[in-house]
Amino acid sequence: MQAEIITIGDELLIGQVVDTNSAWLGQMLNKSNIKVNRINSISDDANEIKDMLTSCMKRSELVIITGGLGPTKDDITKKTLKDFFGMSWRIDQEVIDQLEMYFKDRGRQLMEINKIQAELPDGCITLFNEWGTAPGMWFEVDGRVVISLPGVPYEMKNIFEFKALPKIQERFQEPSLYHKTIVTFNIPESILAKQIEDIEDQLPSNIKLAYLPGLNVVRLRLTGTMSDGLDIYKSVDSFSQRIVDRVGSGVIATQDLTLAEIISNILISNGKTLSVAESCTGGYISHLLTLIPGASKAFVGSVISYSNSVKHHQLGVESTLFETVGAVSEQVVSQMAIGVRERLQTDYSIAVSGVAGPAGGSDEKPVGTVVIGVSSAQETIVKTFHFHGERMNVIGRSANMAFVMLKDLVQ
Amino acid sequence: MQAEIITIGDELLIGQVVDTNSAWLGQMLNKSNIKVNRINSISDDANEIKDMLTSCMKRSELVIITGGLGPTKDDITKKTLKDFFGMSWRIDQEVIDQLEMYFKDRGRQLMEINKIQAELPDGCITLFNEWGTAPGMWFEVDGRVVISLPGVPYEMKNIFEFKALPKIQERFQEPSLYHKTIVTFNIPESILAKQIEDIEDQLPSNIKLAYLPGLNVVRLRLTGTMSDGLDIYKSVDSFSQRIVDRVGSGVIATQDLTLAEIISNILISNGKTLSVAESCTGGYISHLLTLIPGASKAFVGSVISYSNSVKHHQLGVESTLFETVGAVSEQVVSQMAIGVRERLQTDYSIAVSGVAGPAGGSDEKPVGTVVIGVSSAQETIVKTFHFHGERMNVIGRSANMAFVMLKDLVQ
Repeated sequence: MQAEIITIGDELLIGQVVDTNSAWLGQMLNKSNIKVNRINSISDDANEIKDMLTSCMKRSELVIITGGLGPTKDDITKKTLKDFFGMSWRIDQEVIDQLEMYFKDRGRQLMEINKIQAELPDGCITLFNEWGTAPGMWFEVDGRVVISLPGVPYEMKNIFEFKALPKIQERFQEPSLYHKTIVTFNIPESILAKQIEDIEDQLPSNIKLAYLPGLNVVRLRLTGTMSDGLDIYKSVDSFSQRIVDRVGSGVIATQDLTLAEIISNILISNGKTLSVAESCTGGYISHLLTLIPGASKAFVGSVISYSNSVKHHQLGVESTLFETVGAVSEQVVSQMAIGVRERLQTDYSIAVSGVAGPAGGSDEKPVGTVVIGVSSAQETIVKTFHFHGERMNVIGRSANMAFVMLKDLVQ
Repeated sequence: MQAEIITIGDELLIGQVVDTNSAWLGQMLNKSNIKVNRINSISDDANEIKDMLTSCMKRSELVIITGGLGPTKDDITKKTLKDFFGMSWRIDQEVIDQLEMYFKDRGRQLMEINKIQAELPDGCITLFNEWGTAPGMWFEVDGRVVISLPGVPYEMKNIFEFKALPKIQERFQEPSLYHKTIVTFNIPESILAKQIEDIEDQLPSNIKLAYLPGLNVVRLRLTGTMSDGLDIYKSVDSFSQRIVDRVGSGVIATQDLTLAEIISNILISNGKTLSVAESCTGGYISHLLTLIPGASKAFVGSVISYSNSVKHHQLGVESTLFETVGAVSEQVVSQMAIGVRERLQTDYSIAVSGVAGPAGGSDEKPVGTVVIGVSSAQETIVKTFHFHGERMNVIGRSANMAFVMLKDLVQ
């Protein structure tokens, strides 16, 4: 059984918006053991939508469409689906009632343009939208299921998870896929591949290995497909263990977690606290930590010391150092790490100062030079790195390296 | 003339990785007036790649493929392209020379597995990769151009921008598209549509209007297609001006900028400085500001006061308030805003405290309750909001609202 995703919107094709909906839908379907075969992004154009739908319905039993359900004139998905399936309009009174509630809650008046959202193709089942005004739609035609969802991510997610997914699971019953992810750090992909070449060669045909390179991180994903009478879980786990043993200290997790989640979990389980002093990463490390619900159990706070004055006054860095060794130096970062840990009274701290680029580099300290420190009451470790890539890459690599240095210090 | 993008990788289909490459490519092609017709994400499977390539080459003169060029066994794009085009292998000595340099620079030894990267289909032109080990490839077959690029974003971007794009611009000469974006704030999409309905109805067929809703932001994008003898720039600009006049104070920019860029530009042009005190946004506001190269001209630093202890010690918030009115209150946020502005010695400040969820809500202060303050030496304005959506939405809406409140205070 195959599923396919169609995301509709010119904004996707000209790159004004990154399509995060597909990845999320892929994850959700994957957890329900439904394989997404293709993701197709197309224009807000009726012919394009019809052509794409025709070919998707040939290939796949489940087609999920996002986008083009808004109340404005450039939103044409609903009418196109009605025409494509040869249906008529019906008014869904429950949607009107819900819209009235929605607008009342927000202190606004329901307008005619909003009432159009209650007009639906008569052959579809309504998937109610509790977070917005455009309902989702469930079509079942020629043995295919076609689901249309709004493009606004949180509305789409809500309708999919609570309205569409239960119906999908009921309608399609699939053989299992089983994924196991190993997170490795600071080992180039090619060296990793060489290291585990013989294990990879022994993988049976129902287990697939993928290398997913990130910023100084490579994720190894083993995917097993259930076959009759075989225990795919045991087999995948055993290959995973062999890889973990082989790669040794380069493995930092055997679950698909972010580095922020890994370090946050370690700190929480040890009952320890963390503070951060960020210069070139400018709040990104703190943001990654606070993206995790419940992060406050370990993360106490940060000082974003973008200017030297803040490094001096808020973190206690000696101001003479800015003249003698500069803000991007092991001395300054060491004082930042100790300063933030002492002032915010935490068990551990991270400090970062560097040149993220594109400007600010020098011969001595070119763009990509980053000094990272981690500190506890017992010791402070500071290292200088030279990262490659553009501004956001340097920031991202610095954050990942900081998390791993802290992990090593804690353990 | 049409272009199409194929992104290859199971990790995209199961949602382990979000496809940001396509959006970036869409932007770059759009700037060169090349319209992306479809974005197709498919599996690492030779038959899938060949099928997709066959249909893309029927529809489009330019096909750009990303992914599957790494040195590991799951990377099959290069071999598939060689087979698809009926070519043989050649060794590119320049790539070998470059690989030797690349590894030498990084203090590593060139391995046999890396040398495979210099093996290329004999009918392609090499697009050298200065940031990684997998070169890009340029194929010209049956009047179509097919470009294959690595999936690692910064390698892909570098090769595309500096190696592929100049060749594309030389090969294809296209009529112009002209985009104009109007950024509106805090007006629901349906109300906006009603407000400008008559203007929208008067748009000629060569100008298209799209509504791009974000977090409390709706971007209106006018796109004009050049026709003979018509001044599309003048026509788009004139419709844009009519919309701007109609929407009035709801318009916060007439360029496609982020809210962080808008406020940063205003502060820099006024020679003013900014500090931030973040609780529930946890560093995200600071991150958005420091994503902008040159942000340090206005942004000085922040205190991420996730715990009450940090709010008290680093920002001077009276600790009795946590008991009496709680950390999510106008009194605390007011003191946070004044505290960070005075301690970091800036002209302006932003402060945020709230309940981002999913936990931490109460009857009195449910999830989504966020207090935002902005402060100058003359005045401090604090407001309470109730945002909808999940954790990252609440964080993102809070950041956008804070930027707009500061903009109002500055102007």
